Amino acid sequence: MSQPEVSFDTEPGRYRHLRLEFDGEIARIVLRVDESGGLVPGYELKLNSYDLGVDIELYDAVQRLRFEHPEVRAVVVTGGLEKVFCAGANIRMLAQSEHSWKVNFCKFTNETRNGIEDATAHSGQTYLAAVNGTAAGGGYELALACDQIILIDDGSSAVSLPEVPLLAVLPGTGGLTRVVDKRGVRKDLADVFATRSEGVRGRTAVEWRLVDETAPRSRFAETVRQRAAEAAARSTRPAGAEGIALPPLRRSQTGDTIAYSTVRAELDRANGLVEITVHGPRHDVPESLERIHELGADFWPLAMTRELDDLILRLRTNELELGTWVLRTEGDVDRVLAFERVLAEHGRADWLVNEIRHYFKRTLKRLDVTSRSLIALIEPGGCFAGPLLELALACDRQYMLDGLLQEDEPARIALTANIGEPEPEEKDEPKRGGIALAPGDGEREPARIVLTASNFGSFPMGNGLSRLASRFHGDPDHVAKLHLEAGRRIDAAEALELGLVTFAPDDLDWEDEVRIALEERASLSPDALTAMEANLRFAGPETMETKIFARLTAWQNWIFNRPNAAGPEGALRLYGTGRRATFDRRRV
Amino acid sequence: MSQPEVSFDTEPGRYRHLRLEFDGEIARIVLRVDESGGLVPGYELKLNSYDLGVDIELYDAVQRLRFEHPEVRAVVVTGGLEKVFCAGANIRMLAQSEHSWKVNFCKFTNETRNGIEDATAHSGQTYLAAVNGTAAGGGYELALACDQIILIDDGSSAVSLPEVPLLAVLPGTGGLTRVVDKRGVRKDLADVFATRSEGVRGRTAVEWRLVDETAPRSRFAETVRQRAAEAAARSTRPAGAEGIALPPLRRSQTGDTIAYSTVRAELDRANGLVEITVHGPRHDVPESLERIHELGADFWPLAMTRELDDLILRLRTNELELGTWVLRTEGDVDRVLAFERVLAEHGRADWLVNEIRHYFKRTLKRLDVTSRSLIALIEPGGCFAGPLLELALACDRQYMLDGLLQEDEPARIALTANIGEPEPEEKDEPKRGGIALAPGDGEREPARIVLTASNFGSFPMGNGLSRLASRFHGDPDHVAKLHLEAGRRIDAAEALELGLVTFAPDDLDWEDEVRIALEERASLSPDALTAMEANLRFAGPETMETKIFARLTAWQNWIFNRPNAAGPEGALRLYGTGRRATFDRRRV
Repeated sequence: MSQPEVSFDTEPGRYRHLRLEFDGEIARIVLRVDESGGLVPGYELKLNSYDLGVDIELYDAVQRLRFEHPEVRAVVVTGGLEKVFCAGANIRMLAQSEHSWKVNFCKFTNETRNGIEDATAHSGQTYLAAVNGTAAGGGYELALACDQIILIDDGSSAVSLPEVPLLAVLPGTGGLTRVVDKRGVRKDLADVFATRSEGVRGRTAVEWRLVDETAPRSRFAETVRQRAAEAAARSTRPAGAEGIALPPLRRSQTGDTIAYSTVRAELDRANGLVEITVHGPRHDVPESLERIHELGADFWPLAMTRELDDLILRLRTNELELGTWVLRTEGDVDRVLAFERVLAEHGRADWLVNEIRHYFKRTLKRLDVTSRSLIALIEPGGCFAGPLLELALACDRQYMLDGLLQEDEPARIALTANIGEPEPEEKDEPKRGGIALAPGDGEREPARIVLTASNFGSFPMGNGLSRLASRFHGDPDHVAKLHLEAGRRIDAAEALELGLVTFAPDDLDWEDEVRIALEERASLSPDALTAMEANLRFAGPETMETKIFARLTAWQNWIFNRPNAAGPEGALRLYGTGRRATFDRRRV
Repeated sequence: MSQPEVSFDTEPGRYRHLRLEFDGEIARIVLRVDESGGLVPGYELKLNSYDLGVDIELYDAVQRLRFEHPEVRAVVVTGGLEKVFCAGANIRMLAQSEHSWKVNFCKFTNETRNGIEDATAHSGQTYLAAVNGTAAGGGYELALACDQIILIDDGSSAVSLPEVPLLAVLPGTGGLTRVVDKRGVRKDLADVFATRSEGVRGRTAVEWRLVDETAPRSRFAETVRQRAAEAAARSTRPAGAEGIALPPLRRSQTGDTIAYSTVRAELDRANGLVEITVHGPRHDVPESLERIHELGADFWPLAMTRELDDLILRLRTNELELGTWVLRTEGDVDRVLAFERVLAEHGRADWLVNEIRHYFKRTLKRLDVTSRSLIALIEPGGCFAGPLLELALACDRQYMLDGLLQEDEPARIALTANIGEPEPEEKDEPKRGGIALAPGDGEREPARIVLTASNFGSFPMGNGLSRLASRFHGDPDHVAKLHLEAGRRIDAAEALELGLVTFAPDDLDWEDEVRIALEERASLSPDALTAMEANLRFAGPETMETKIFARLTAWQNWIFNRPNAAGPEGALRLYGTGRRATFDRRRV
């Protein structure tokens, strides 16, 4: 199969597979997958099975509930088909997909499920799975991402993880990890469960901790309603809050440029890389919290985060051969810091600012698990300060220009003109932001970075550490020392000395050093880089979340390469044909 | 390549690749690999590169230092070739090996390195790497397993992890994990290091924390001697202790039976399984600590552990198609408990008893990472008590017979007669042990298990938890409750109720239920089982040790299946041919 170009744009009015229902403080996500609505031809989405297209709608729904519906305090996920909750990832889709597609699909699915848990933990929106019928494989894994699972007790509906016995693959989007680590199912029972294709139902499912409770059909709706009401009553969401709209992103794609209002990407196919520039705020910080709510999706931190999120998803899915992402920023450091202060000031008390902060956190986490080499270029005119410095710290390496480039050189390497059409700068802006694109400006200053509270725990990685704590895993005292540097402009030599950047070449070396690094990166095996980066980026502890991306995902990716599952005679490919796979019986 | 039958038997007099040298409290392991001494044909072990055969000697040396040389308080690992420490795993060997061989080889290598760290942590034998020349790839990973790394500063000798740039595989035997997690190398520098084939030397190696110090050739030997003396001075090893000998194991292999003095395995090729029986002590517990030292390798806990260790290694390496291991015990529960008491009593104070306890711990950990389905059968005549109960808890499932089988049935399923020739039972033994093999005995009692202190933390898994704590990860209070049951005989119904066993069928169901479970297991995909078990067995936290077997190993196994590395045109296969791999550039 050749791969379609995927867009992540959607909205409730366009959903084909989900319905969002609202009843005061309780929302329902009703899964009723359109069998003929697969993202690519070749399979039918029977029994509420899903593909990436369904997942895109689910992700969109979870996001909109957080931003557009602050009145919602509990979210019930349920199936809209008779006796079916969700049959999991569509098997024919998996069987016909290329390895890279399967891996990327599973990653996005995992991220959305983590987002469901994040909403429960940080957003006052508790998710409950109302399992009204069969919940198999990824269907049960979706339920596992919810805070509570209520299973209908009708004598037949079961939860199951039939991947191992039926398909010779894993319940690999969180299932094996969440069963034992989140729900505390005993591992021997988990072994029985995950090898029993028919699954477990009724009282046994409760006893084994696979679900929280069961309810007969006659009391199912009422039980779910009651549990949702109880969860809603515990919510910290404010009363009377009004949501903001998440309008379609303004994105222009012209040739090899993807441009949004604050984020721009130049696809350099010849060199296998993407140059991504995140622009700092073009306006001064809003004068009041009310104004932030009025601005809504135009408020810079939210606009930037949405655009970056969309870009990451599009590049990851559609641009597999662009193996290196070069990240830059442009703009005014003071403004970035002013926006950060307003985020910090209102982050706990205001639901919207809280949501924006957590959304930026999740977007950074997406970067952490992105299988591309990430290189930060810190140059004059950039604004790697506080929250934006996290972008650099998420990278595999940081290059910072020491001093200025000579006047007659372009300040930036191989970056073409700005093709997207951003709003013009406000008139009263000091002439510093975006300087590299404004040749002739006499006030050029060398690059500076700024550490702030944002870098010491506001945006933790999946392993629970700040990116600085992870970076200095071997030297925690150094993180304490860096606290003393917070708020200061740090130049390249200092940044190198403090271990905040990898290299700090001066103008004589800059271009060669960066170019050679990018060329070398492009020459290495994409697989080896993916695996190396996945290991080096997560120094320190593992959490349930990182275990899903590490232990579980890596094993699943292994299986997706093994003939017993994915070969022409493998179980995944033969499923439904009536033929049985013949396994290579050697244990590896 | 077809795979040779591998034996793990060796001793210093037979080493081809290492030399053990002793200088009072300091020992040296000098690596001087015999180029023509490869375990299989097809490659030359140049530049101190290694294969499984070299690793087997290293493992043997580490074990013997612990048991035979209690006077040793520091161990220096160094290279015996000019300007070469160790060039890592032999690349041609890797290139010509089957996937399963590479995976199994890496696992054993990892286990030996963990053993080196275990000796440093628990044995008062601190390992130091005296890197006298090139330490590349697995060579540097060997150094990383040592407590200190001293690198010669001769203007050329470097440490390096060139796997990614040269071979398109990972530094996958601990390298990527230990660099950031153990040594605290900053992850961006680790990224540079692991993509730079020539490595890092001199002052930079120290600054990046890749080594602890450098010393010029003129002072290298003296510096190493001094550091070793300092480490020795901190050792807790007693003065004047005398080692015990580790004589060759008495192992008979007849047809499909492998029999030792206390451990026996029946290979059931038709059903793809191995029936392993561990026999409890046949003698009463020695009357004194002196007697334990006299018995040495004949002391039951050590004999049993050595035999089990050897069996695990042989089966893992040589019997890939036997995917299920059925574990039983036979013997007298009281004796097992008596031996446990003597181990607990002297475990801290006596170096030998301490060694035996840690060796049993490591052997259990080997079981934890063994890619075979592990099924415990708890039957009358067994002695799953205390330390031996850990064998059952290491299994994926536990089946316990409730009551007795009818007189006319064999007490055990499909277990052939005892082919090994164990020593006869002592005459005064109560007629309980090994009952299943003594039909006609009238005093048959139903199976019992016994919890003791051994099950609450004496033998932690790699994740730092006891097997009970990991089993009840979701219910820590239950572990506290189980403490109250310690010392009591627990029958099948109670064991089921307490969650200590998975199933407890009575005599009517026993045979069918066990048989069906084993048949079902044999029908599933070996790969899916390996991956499922690797996930379910490690509920709870991850540690550096488990990260190596989880995140790092799973990614390496993935790469070992990817064409960019292991395909006919992959970098691993083309290395040394002068041809360059052409990579599929899609990022996965």
